[in-house]
Amino acid sequence: MKELSVTSRVRNEMIDITESVSRAVADAPVEAGFCVVFVPHTTAAVTINENADPDVPRDLLAKLASVYPQEDHYHHSEGNSDAHLKAALVGPSVVIPLREGRLALGRWQGIFFCEFDGPRRRQVWIQVR
Amino acid sequence: MKELSVTSRVRNEMIDITESVSRAVADAPVEAGFCVVFVPHTTAAVTINENADPDVPRDLLAKLASVYPQEDHYHHSEGNSDAHLKAALVGPSVVIPLREGRLALGRWQGIFFCEFDGPRRRQVWIQVR
Amino acid sequence: MKELSVTSRVRNEMIDITESVSRAVADAPVEAGFCVVFVPHTTAAVTINENADPDVPRDLLAKLASVYPQEDHYHHSEGNSDAHLKAALVGPSVVIPLREGRLALGRWQGIFFCEFDGPRRRQVWIQVR
Repeated sequence: MKELSVTSRVRNEMIDITESVSRAVADAPVEAGFCVVFVPHTTAAVTINENADPDVPRDLLAKLASVYPQEDHYHHSEGNSDAHLKAALVGPSVVIPLREGRLALGRWQGIFFCEFDGPRRRQVWIQVR
Repeated sequence: MKELSVTSRVRNEMIDITESVSRAVADAPVEAGFCVVFVPHTTAAVTINENADPDVPRDLLAKLASVYPQEDHYHHSEGNSDAHLKAALVGPSVVIPLREGRLALGRWQGIFFCEFDGPRRRQVWIQVR
Repeated sequence: MKELSVTSRVRNEMIDITESVSRAVADAPVEAGFCVVFVPHTTAAVTINENADPDVPRDLLAKLASVYPQEDHYHHSEGNSDAHLKAALVGPSVVIPLREGRLALGRWQGIFFCEFDGPRRRQVWIQVR
């Protein structure tokens, strides 16, 4: 299993990790199978979406913040229930098929680490099989 | 990896692809393991839900459209930020265990390709391992 | 494939199944690979989140109920369209990498069965590969 470090700079941020994941896959001796990208945190997540126009992740984060605002009638005392919610909904992992030993992603797809309670130093685990 | 073509006819649509995925699994020489259904697009997704009553996908699409409306304070100029949002939340892949070489789905579960920016011709990738 | 029974006591409930999943993984002769936790229902789901403070799942369920209320302009006659929606968004499966034959979870992560239409007797399927 490969480990990747990601450093977020603001509270909500989508960080493109496609290249790092591609490199981890290139190092693995697997031709056909899967790559699992797993986030071992409870206030961050991982997703796949368009990485061409930065307005796409910008709109995504803004709308999520409006549906799941930081301040609400929450009980959890750390003030980050919105981050737990977004992490559970976006999800802690993505599974990407491999083709000829490489990530089989669509033309416009990039892999994003989703920070919902930054800034923090985070980890991403990559398993190829 | 098998490739499946899906053609959507309207902007938001859930298309039952359970039978096509089942056939792809039947063709694979794997007894126990996983099937990954992967959507290589950024404004479409895949999910598993009830495929008995068409009102279930109908309610699902209607409520998602009300929480994530097409018109909002978005910056992305293509006018489909709602589709990117829904794609990220529903997710680009599902993983289904295999039992005796067949999809292990629950009694009421069907696999749905989720179109959020149709009509379009789309692809679905199916990897069995 | 291992099968786990889960009994929910109320309509919306997050049940920590981390220990049961860990035991199923310990029984499997796999050192490195994945564990897939799959929920074969259409009104329940599975997610990973903090299992230290019970206020986290409490906030999660309360906010989901406010964004996706049980009563709305739904067509599905069984009165549980909200449960189908939440099941599709939280998702029917999680994939967790293995390290040295054990679940590779982050320090604060637990695996939760998410009941959205209880109380019911439910199943969880666990596949290790």
